[in-house]
Amino acid sequence: MQFVTYVQDGKQHVGLFTQEQRFIVPIAAAEKHFLGSAAIPDDMQAIIEAGDDVVAKIKELAEKAAADNKFPLVAVDAVTVLAPIPRPKKNIFCIGKNYVEHALEFDKSGDANTAVPKYPVVFTKPPTTVVGPGAVVKSHQDVTGQLDYEVELAVVIGKTASKVSRAEAYDYVFGYTIMNDVTARDLQKRHLQWFLGKGLDTFAPLGPCLVHKSAIPDPHNLNISCKINGEIRQNANTRDMVFDIPTLIEVISAGITLEPGDIIATGTPSGVGAGFNPPKFLKSGDVMELEIAGIGILKNTIE
Amino acid sequence: MQFVTYVQDGKQHVGLFTQEQRFIVPIAAAEKHFLGSAAIPDDMQAIIEAGDDVVAKIKELAEKAAADNKFPLVAVDAVTVLAPIPRPKKNIFCIGKNYVEHALEFDKSGDANTAVPKYPVVFTKPPTTVVGPGAVVKSHQDVTGQLDYEVELAVVIGKTASKVSRAEAYDYVFGYTIMNDVTARDLQKRHLQWFLGKGLDTFAPLGPCLVHKSAIPDPHNLNISCKINGEIRQNANTRDMVFDIPTLIEVISAGITLEPGDIIATGTPSGVGAGFNPPKFLKSGDVMELEIAGIGILKNTIE
Repeated sequence: MQFVTYVQDGKQHVGLFTQEQRFIVPIAAAEKHFLGSAAIPDDMQAIIEAGDDVVAKIKELAEKAAADNKFPLVAVDAVTVLAPIPRPKKNIFCIGKNYVEHALEFDKSGDANTAVPKYPVVFTKPPTTVVGPGAVVKSHQDVTGQLDYEVELAVVIGKTASKVSRAEAYDYVFGYTIMNDVTARDLQKRHLQWFLGKGLDTFAPLGPCLVHKSAIPDPHNLNISCKINGEIRQNANTRDMVFDIPTLIEVISAGITLEPGDIIATGTPSGVGAGFNPPKFLKSGDVMELEIAGIGILKNTIE
Repeated sequence: MQFVTYVQDGKQHVGLFTQEQRFIVPIAAAEKHFLGSAAIPDDMQAIIEAGDDVVAKIKELAEKAAADNKFPLVAVDAVTVLAPIPRPKKNIFCIGKNYVEHALEFDKSGDANTAVPKYPVVFTKPPTTVVGPGAVVKSHQDVTGQLDYEVELAVVIGKTASKVSRAEAYDYVFGYTIMNDVTARDLQKRHLQWFLGKGLDTFAPLGPCLVHKSAIPDPHNLNISCKINGEIRQNANTRDMVFDIPTLIEVISAGITLEPGDIIATGTPSGVGAGFNPPKFLKSGDVMELEIAGIGILKNTIE
């Protein structure tokens, strides 16, 4: 199941992508059509909070819709797709330097022993960074001259998680999406803590959909890549993370209660603009296409 | 006006402290009693979002209540006071090393030129850190052995603020409260970015009230202090901040849209536990009393 949040006729809805991601099964309309009820919340955050029973019910509806040629699907081209969770209820948790090759991009010594962190590095992006697929990312030219991209696998938490062990971590996952951890490298460096350079408005494109974990049995075997204007810049596999998803959930939840709808972006592989010599920072009009196998392509343009 | 959020008979309300902070004017009850209406939201976040007109109306009600001996006030001792904003809509913005003497506590060189940041250092604490006055702060003994306190003046934003200049910054402020930026020093250091060591559950006691800016004409002339078990550890004045409130609002809002109810904690003066030799970290049962002139005392105990 690939959940998608979209706007049709000025109203926000939740649906499911059909296989080619060209059509959407509108969940509320399907419930009304097939069951004559309106019990499922038409909001992604509320669906996550509602838990497994509602997800199972949505799955049944999707099967009914797939089997019924007369049920009207929504054409993706006819609506505006938003971030799957358009307004998270807190900042996004982000992991820094979580791929060895990427950690080395920022370390002149070239020594992985010192460049790669011994413990997860966690920072955040505020809810005001979130935009959907297709949205324009602001260039913020008045405050930065070093705009950079970072493709990341983002994990969405499904249940309240406190002191969760590695072994049980996936029980607390709802699903996965793609995040572009857009970064102003000069601000990231100048302000010492990374929040400001990572937190500017529109700096977290998210999407195109939130894939339920049942559709991604192994999140650590996914190709992950990023193209800028068609040129491949990042190309890796999620198996190369330094700290895997169960470890991240264990370490964070040891002291911080994770809640349904919380988002953890798991870090980016090598190939970011700042890693090239000379650096390849983003310019106005640049098109970023981030792809993760089984999730889709998250495409955004620089203002 | 000193806004207070409290629970009475299982229901959450907003009120105003009377002068000694021993009684509360219940706003919704006062509106019903004096005006026969129920238009003012009984929720701090909603009051801030409602804007100046509602604040003016609340001020009138407070005056009516003060002039009417028969209007029943609420005894503070009879209710549970919560954080003024019990669940912020995003992480709290926090400023690091914003007092010269405090920056020097962490710098062995003793050179203010290198110890004091050239630009504001910004990090965040998630909404799950927030607790009210009187609440127990968890010791998190399973993950930290270096629990520390930090008294801070916290600014609450009143209006959506994007690209606000220093000169106009106070127009966007709603008011002020006290935050205890409780910190696990070992985690702060080990995880490189400060978020994790600053973000554990219950690590942001907030309160006891949210003072409207009209009652604090100069937020940069306030005594600010912290006692642990009655011993004065921190004792300074908010005039000694490196980056003042207008500068912080200008720098953050240059790229990040600030929203009503956003909280900016402005950093702590010297005297934290980690600054002593040997360090004076917090132990179970320790009582923290944080005081800022014109706001009150924020008292919490370690689990």
